Amino acid sequence: MTTVDSTAIDHEDHGDQQCHDHAAHGYISNKDDYLKRLRRIEGQARGLQRMVEEDKYCIDILTQVSAMTKALQAVALGLLEDHLEHCVVDAAVAGGPEAEAKLKEASQAIARLVRS
Amino acid sequence: MTTVDSTAIDHEDHGDQQCHDHAAHGYISNKDDYLKRLRRIEGQARGLQRMVEEDKYCIDILTQVSAMTKALQAVALGLLEDHLEHCVVDAAVAGGPEAEAKLKEASQAIARLVRS
Amino acid sequence: MTTVDSTAIDHEDHGDQQCHDHAAHGYISNKDDYLKRLRRIEGQARGLQRMVEEDKYCIDILTQVSAMTKALQAVALGLLEDHLEHCVVDAAVAGGPEAEAKLKEASQAIARLVRS
Amino acid sequence: MTTVDSTAIDHEDHGDQQCHDHAAHGYISNKDDYLKRLRRIEGQARGLQRMVEEDKYCIDILTQVSAMTKALQAVALGLLEDHLEHCVVDAAVAGGPEAEAKLKEASQAIARLVRS
Repeated sequence: MTTVDSTAIDHEDHGDQQCHDHAAHGYISNKDDYLKRLRRIEGQARGLQRMVEEDKYCIDILTQVSAMTKALQAVALGLLEDHLEHCVVDAAVAGGPEAEAKLKEASQAIARLVRS
Repeated sequence: MTTVDSTAIDHEDHGDQQCHDHAAHGYISNKDDYLKRLRRIEGQARGLQRMVEEDKYCIDILTQVSAMTKALQAVALGLLEDHLEHCVVDAAVAGGPEAEAKLKEASQAIARLVRS
Repeated sequence: MTTVDSTAIDHEDHGDQQCHDHAAHGYISNKDDYLKRLRRIEGQARGLQRMVEEDKYCIDILTQVSAMTKALQAVALGLLEDHLEHCVVDAAVAGGPEAEAKLKEASQAIARLVRS
Repeated sequence: MTTVDSTAIDHEDHGDQQCHDHAAHGYISNKDDYLKRLRRIEGQARGLQRMVEEDKYCIDILTQVSAMTKALQAVALGLLEDHLEHCVVDAAVAGGPEAEAKLKEASQAIARLVRS
């Protein structure tokens, strides 16, 4: 199952499969918007390489890095909100250890975002 | 005075050129390293697009975003250190309003990094 | 109702009352632990005043500020996890606009933490 | 020398002494302002304890934590700017290994702030 292969955190197949579907519904709606934003972020990464190659002024490069970091954060916060609204809520309604696992997993993802 | 014009984002060629030389010496040494790291970051941005296209699990996408944010931060901290060691130190030794302007500019860049 | 008086975000009385109780159950369990950690943080704030009064070395003061910031973040992440596990889950199970409001509110709190 | 006892990073007595004086001059000017801000932060820590004791709504507590974190960051950025303008600049003008050590130390403090 591709989601499990690509996963960075352990979660059971069942929960993952179940959540994969919900998660997909979570951001499928504005998938194009996320892709557009990520393509822009990819472009910012290329722009930074150009600035370094052309020995652009450090401070200007740092300004671009800050802008790119903010753009990444906004994508993360959007995905997290989608995840809570779909995957976590569905697991909560279903209840049981699955719900607990999803909440723990979401809290760990939030901690990584706050600390990064 | 060119450096005063030469604030964080826009500044004339001259001010830029003036600091550019120092700044260039700052990161020219490990320019290839910065380019390698920025290409990897660009690759992470493409990887995120793939994950969204393939409806990968939200949490796994968020994990990748956190890793990418940390990589960007490390590049910014390296560039900032180079900038302090070369551009700011040279301006400090030269003294005058130029030195003050460079310090103010560096402090503003640090504030943007801390807040982003 | 005191919770409404102290609230920084608008939420209906009912939802708030309902959630206040759950939220309380959320952290009541380890309330003493939170209080202990917050008293330690208060002590760090007093320690910083002492360091400034005694003209302690800037870098050492900054090291203490970083430690204090991390301690505050840990408290916030703990409270947020409690909030998701109790208040948000209960609202999700109850469903309706209340659930949506709680999720939106939690997402906004997460965004404030990530950006601060 | 108290600064050496209280230091979190090793630096030679001489350099430290030399820097301690400058660093002091660095923030002595607006020392009262820093103390006022730190007393307010201490008050915020006490306010948070009261909110937990009174079972205040989690989200409202988190809002206060975010405000307190921002206030701490502002103090850190002010102290860092003072440190660069005085201690680091003086070391840079003096030159030698002392200057390098001060720059490395400042860069490490910036990294701690960016990552906390």
